[in-house]
Amino acid sequence: MSAEGAVLLKDDLNRAMQGLGRAARAAAHVLGLAAPETKATALRAAAQAIRARQAEILDANALDMEAGRAKGLSAALLDRLLLDPERVEAMARGLEEIAAFPDPVGKVLEVRKRPNGLVIEKITVPLGVIGIIYESRPNVTADAGGLCLKAGNAAILRGGSESFHSSGAILDCLREGLRTAGLPEAAIQRVPTTDRAAVGILLTMHDTVDVIVPRGGRGLIERVMAESRIPVMAHLDGLCHTYVDRAADLAMARAIVVNAKMRRTGICGATETLLLDRAVAATHLKPILDDLIAAGCEVRGDADVRAAEPRAKPASEQDWDTEYLAPIIAVKLVDGVDAAVDHINCHGSHHTEAIVTGDRATAERFMSHVDAGIVMHNTSTQYADGGEFGMGAEIGISTGKLHARGPVGAEQLTSTKYVVRGAGQVRP
Amino acid sequence: MSAEGAVLLKDDLNRAMQGLGRAARAAAHVLGLAAPETKATALRAAAQAIRARQAEILDANALDMEAGRAKGLSAALLDRLLLDPERVEAMARGLEEIAAFPDPVGKVLEVRKRPNGLVIEKITVPLGVIGIIYESRPNVTADAGGLCLKAGNAAILRGGSESFHSSGAILDCLREGLRTAGLPEAAIQRVPTTDRAAVGILLTMHDTVDVIVPRGGRGLIERVMAESRIPVMAHLDGLCHTYVDRAADLAMARAIVVNAKMRRTGICGATETLLLDRAVAATHLKPILDDLIAAGCEVRGDADVRAAEPRAKPASEQDWDTEYLAPIIAVKLVDGVDAAVDHINCHGSHHTEAIVTGDRATAERFMSHVDAGIVMHNTSTQYADGGEFGMGAEIGISTGKLHARGPVGAEQLTSTKYVVRGAGQVRP
Repeated sequence: MSAEGAVLLKDDLNRAMQGLGRAARAAAHVLGLAAPETKATALRAAAQAIRARQAEILDANALDMEAGRAKGLSAALLDRLLLDPERVEAMARGLEEIAAFPDPVGKVLEVRKRPNGLVIEKITVPLGVIGIIYESRPNVTADAGGLCLKAGNAAILRGGSESFHSSGAILDCLREGLRTAGLPEAAIQRVPTTDRAAVGILLTMHDTVDVIVPRGGRGLIERVMAESRIPVMAHLDGLCHTYVDRAADLAMARAIVVNAKMRRTGICGATETLLLDRAVAATHLKPILDDLIAAGCEVRGDADVRAAEPRAKPASEQDWDTEYLAPIIAVKLVDGVDAAVDHINCHGSHHTEAIVTGDRATAERFMSHVDAGIVMHNTSTQYADGGEFGMGAEIGISTGKLHARGPVGAEQLTSTKYVVRGAGQVRP
Repeated sequence: MSAEGAVLLKDDLNRAMQGLGRAARAAAHVLGLAAPETKATALRAAAQAIRARQAEILDANALDMEAGRAKGLSAALLDRLLLDPERVEAMARGLEEIAAFPDPVGKVLEVRKRPNGLVIEKITVPLGVIGIIYESRPNVTADAGGLCLKAGNAAILRGGSESFHSSGAILDCLREGLRTAGLPEAAIQRVPTTDRAAVGILLTMHDTVDVIVPRGGRGLIERVMAESRIPVMAHLDGLCHTYVDRAADLAMARAIVVNAKMRRTGICGATETLLLDRAVAATHLKPILDDLIAAGCEVRGDADVRAAEPRAKPASEQDWDTEYLAPIIAVKLVDGVDAAVDHINCHGSHHTEAIVTGDRATAERFMSHVDAGIVMHNTSTQYADGGEFGMGAEIGISTGKLHARGPVGAEQLTSTKYVVRGAGQVRP
């Protein structure tokens, strides 16, 4: 097999994809009715397999890293791709945490006893078959596969071509877990090639796939939204803003901004644009930029920012729409909270948006007017994370408005069903 | 204006649609922040306007009926289209009921207090701008417009061309309600032409439209799923089944089947296919078919059914996939509950599926294995209705698995937002 996976002819590819879909549908039927303990056993066995096969996984990752370096991937992408013993152990622990969480299937959300004697329960059920399309990070294979399994769904994974070998080795461990628990291995499958045409086919398989979860940049999400014949739960990388208001405490603003941008620059909750209230530019701009630059951040500013800080490079119009995922920040002066809201609603990705202010009313105005899955007052956008929210592992942060918005864990990978129990009632 | 509405040139149509979208987005911003009482005032004033303008609405409807008769619409479609004083009053009452229901926006669904002091609330927010595409029934204009308004959303309505004049007259009343409450009239708009190209444009307007709700037959839903660049909440008409099991009480089965099929044949919860356990065909088939035929129902059966009941016409393969919405039923003998489940999961529309049986375990097996938004034991599929569920008015029954499944009322027309309040916390 080449580094790009098996090369399949178009008809063979189509046949292979349809086969994947049918196998997933059959597996989903079994998984949807599996006992909570059976699913937990599979997850724990998969974690054990990951520990036992650490060397294999690292060998596979070395192949991906080599190919990545040969391809000239950026340092940030190579870091995303890299596995080491610690990251492998983190995947295993993640699966064990998913195993330990309450089972999200079969929960009774509502009971309605109607005057005519009908009893109507609303219960959680699996979504069915989920197609997950993601980019380079290999650990998503374990997290996404594990969360789908926990929620009784079959998964068809399509990771980035860069992590093809690493993902394959991780998938082997997940399937070993399924076998150990007596569950069908087809519950977690992956697209057997990195050929992009496979994604196109996957997006049309509405008979066998219930939901598509794309996780990645704007290009990927837009392609998926344009081509998919299947409902999509979109996970766009975050173009997050931090707005520092005129009523912000300077020390707090400095600490929050540098954390929001620089704690980790490659995660979706990292702030990409700083908006500063013009009213406090004279006092607040310089110290905040000093901190950022001292931390190794490149600053790109509008004309006002550059006038105050000669080390700032010019920001182009495109910068306001760019997710750097790198130590770069775009900085703009705005005329108060309403201008900040307008900029964010125009340029943001509806992910996570924060305000720093001592004025409670301004904070509430910002948080009610900004259209985003997560809005924050006086804290760092880097907290946008299922774990930090106390929700356990996540596939990502949903930026769509339907179904789930914000962190998506096993609970968000379920649907509902109304179960109506009667004794012969007929409708008058 | 012709009966088909204004005829617009392609560029003009595109410009008109984009203008609709921008106006809706601006109105949604106002509506999303409107007080519950303001929205309720608008709904009550709209109800009053409908009563006050009854004559106007009936005149408009007479034009639609005349055009419909000239076009040769079926009796069933003409009945769906017809308004009379009673149906007009029902629309007004429906809006008042929506006004009286609790406001679904700003509800705190969860509060998480994190060890680091962050307080995370999950609250309900409007979806934003909803595009609703529906077929002939003019009262959907009032229900859909009213429910969107209640949930703080702006609506862009695109009803069937058959009800163009009726819908226009009803829309005028809704807008009068908005004016009375001081809300922007653009909160409820409709596509100003019946040109089908307008739907194509609407489905690409992802900058200004957040969700598309198609309500209609398979053809409409498939077109929308294929073309939409916007997330879709699908409302497919129901291809509902009633399965009569070997352990069914005959008297109960007779009462349920005739009600499920014949109470009203034009609603989405009407049963279209009867599946009968072969084990009780000798005792149960004839009496059930006698009742149906006596009630005026045409029976189409497989060979076994026709052997037992000579009045049955032959069912073709296509009958198992047909939503008659008429006094016609397809009847098939199956080998027990598992065969019934297989038939339903293959031919159903995931709407509402019922089993009649005295065996509790068989009922639970059926209800857990059937993949549908609503599953029922010992009652009539005609109960599939938001009102009967105690949920108030509904736009329809969602047959998708994402976001809302089953009856969709104002509560289901909301999204959520996480509001995080801190005191300067930064992530370690």
